[in-house]
Amino acid sequence: MHKKLFIPGPTEVRQDILEAQATPLIGHRMKAMTELYTGIISTLKELLKTNNFTFVLTASGTAIMEGAIRNCVNKDILCCVNGAFSERWFKIAKACDKNPDAITLDWGKAVKPEMIEEKLKAKKYEAVTLVQNETSTGVRAPIEEITKMMKNYPDVLLLVDTVSSLMGDKIEVDNLGIDVCLASSQKAFALPPGLAVGTVSEKALKKSETVTGRGHYCNFLDIKDYFEKKGQTPTTPAITLMYAMNKQLDKIKTEGIDNRYKRHVAMANHIQEWAKKHFSLFAESGYESVTVTCINNTKNISVADLNTELGKRGFAISNGYGKLKEQTFRIAHMGDLTLDEIKELIKNIEDILKL
Amino acid sequence: MHKKLFIPGPTEVRQDILEAQATPLIGHRMKAMTELYTGIISTLKELLKTNNFTFVLTASGTAIMEGAIRNCVNKDILCCVNGAFSERWFKIAKACDKNPDAITLDWGKAVKPEMIEEKLKAKKYEAVTLVQNETSTGVRAPIEEITKMMKNYPDVLLLVDTVSSLMGDKIEVDNLGIDVCLASSQKAFALPPGLAVGTVSEKALKKSETVTGRGHYCNFLDIKDYFEKKGQTPTTPAITLMYAMNKQLDKIKTEGIDNRYKRHVAMANHIQEWAKKHFSLFAESGYESVTVTCINNTKNISVADLNTELGKRGFAISNGYGKLKEQTFRIAHMGDLTLDEIKELIKNIEDILKL
Repeated sequence: MHKKLFIPGPTEVRQDILEAQATPLIGHRMKAMTELYTGIISTLKELLKTNNFTFVLTASGTAIMEGAIRNCVNKDILCCVNGAFSERWFKIAKACDKNPDAITLDWGKAVKPEMIEEKLKAKKYEAVTLVQNETSTGVRAPIEEITKMMKNYPDVLLLVDTVSSLMGDKIEVDNLGIDVCLASSQKAFALPPGLAVGTVSEKALKKSETVTGRGHYCNFLDIKDYFEKKGQTPTTPAITLMYAMNKQLDKIKTEGIDNRYKRHVAMANHIQEWAKKHFSLFAESGYESVTVTCINNTKNISVADLNTELGKRGFAISNGYGKLKEQTFRIAHMGDLTLDEIKELIKNIEDILKL
Repeated sequence: MHKKLFIPGPTEVRQDILEAQATPLIGHRMKAMTELYTGIISTLKELLKTNNFTFVLTASGTAIMEGAIRNCVNKDILCCVNGAFSERWFKIAKACDKNPDAITLDWGKAVKPEMIEEKLKAKKYEAVTLVQNETSTGVRAPIEEITKMMKNYPDVLLLVDTVSSLMGDKIEVDNLGIDVCLASSQKAFALPPGLAVGTVSEKALKKSETVTGRGHYCNFLDIKDYFEKKGQTPTTPAITLMYAMNKQLDKIKTEGIDNRYKRHVAMANHIQEWAKKHFSLFAESGYESVTVTCINNTKNISVADLNTELGKRGFAISNGYGKLKEQTFRIAHMGDLTLDEIKELIKNIEDILKL
């Protein structure tokens, strides 16, 4: 039996989107590919409210996390670390032979603009990495306040991981002023994994021109150059996944990006009220994610057993991430899931746990 | 109307394989994923006749071309350049801030072992890059002779691009002694694009430990470490493409890898005999690829018009690559295509060109 996915990625993908993948292939250098790809890019820019250069890479979002470092940073970068994925970005910077400093917070805490500003005043950094939505902890960074503060540091690029929030949370790239924004298909897009989305500001592109060792596969300038010449990607993309993305972006447009955001907020509010009633939230108050909720296991339940029972009923939620495995559990409420489906899940959890 | 693909990637994918992608998703940290992925790896190792570390990366093969450079080379590398993709590898080495030298041949010519040996005698290189099957020219490198010669240089790694030949041509990784062997799903595998396959020898892994700046997304040691611990990939893979790969590898096993090779040879012989009768071959004699044939446009036909007419009949072939666009045309005979389908294509070409 298929388990409906309430895990923070891959998320549940609707049948018509799954089936779009089964369309016969076209050549990646054919006109039909240009139409498909330029159509996707144009819709993405509309949904992200951006004029920045936008591309789709065949990879997980991690490849663009690495790409952002390799393209935009010669040496000094500041990484905000408050969970597993923000820590991964810091480690990637080191693994690319850069020189990252970290603002390290306890997991569950949110990064505040003043913490970043203090560091920026003390040392000249080329860029700051920020995970806007920490999938491991359910913490949402106050991106509106952080981007506002960053306007005082126009020479510092802001690289933002919206892997598990883009198409769920409200991310208006140009209004916020995000230099590199990246996301993955298998989260709030409600698509299968395998595609990553990136947007790159003029400022970040200019900076790239001064950085060597950028490589090729996720070289922003190479990708932009090919797109401008041919409306295609420099390397063969995952065409069948793009069929699915094309169809899904149309569906998102039909729903309306603002309605989609409201639906996510409604699901988040519902589940977080419920969680506070029976357990408590792991995220710092006021910084709860709108796409994934991390719940403290205050009743000392067996998360593994709960998931086994849910599995028998056709649902899957997630245990805590890494060191939080049994201390917390996570419920994703993103993508195409509805409030009714969230309520159905909760009813089953209550039934199993006899709440 | 769908055009059956006789282009050198993406190749024609059968309907049952396309449909395998539409299977509902599982979590990439679930046991079901471990079963799926370890099953794929075990079958791949069997088909490639290798005990080397083997992995599947969500990306095009180019990402592993770059990965091989970043993982295995500190500085000095020798690149054999005789076509578009071997040239790309040389450029990637430069783009990764390495110090590549090139053996540059005219397009269409094959790299011979003595050419490489001459260079290896003159300078100490860490690795050699070789494109075993140049998709742009239809030239097959004499991999058997080159690997034999390389045994005299045990300190030099041999990195081999089999992007458009693996699962078509005979590539027995361990018998040959290939240190890094890489390929893409959308060629002779007859799968949709989006997955790349890599094998890495013990020697190459040992070398990686001495190289810094390897990054994370295609870091051989990180990928190996995660596989050994969990039987999964460090980052979210393209699960639906893996469903298709799993099914296709079973079908390849059922056909038998040796039978598959024989079928490819039969198709290659048929089309190359035909091409020599009416045109001539671009590849140096004796070095013709068994998966793609590049044909000199000796009759000065309009390749674009031929393809338009073929398109109306439900077939697609490929024009020449880059600078060879109208001077040559290419017919791929790889993946799951049969000799009968090749004959049907040829009949239609003869009819259109009135041969």
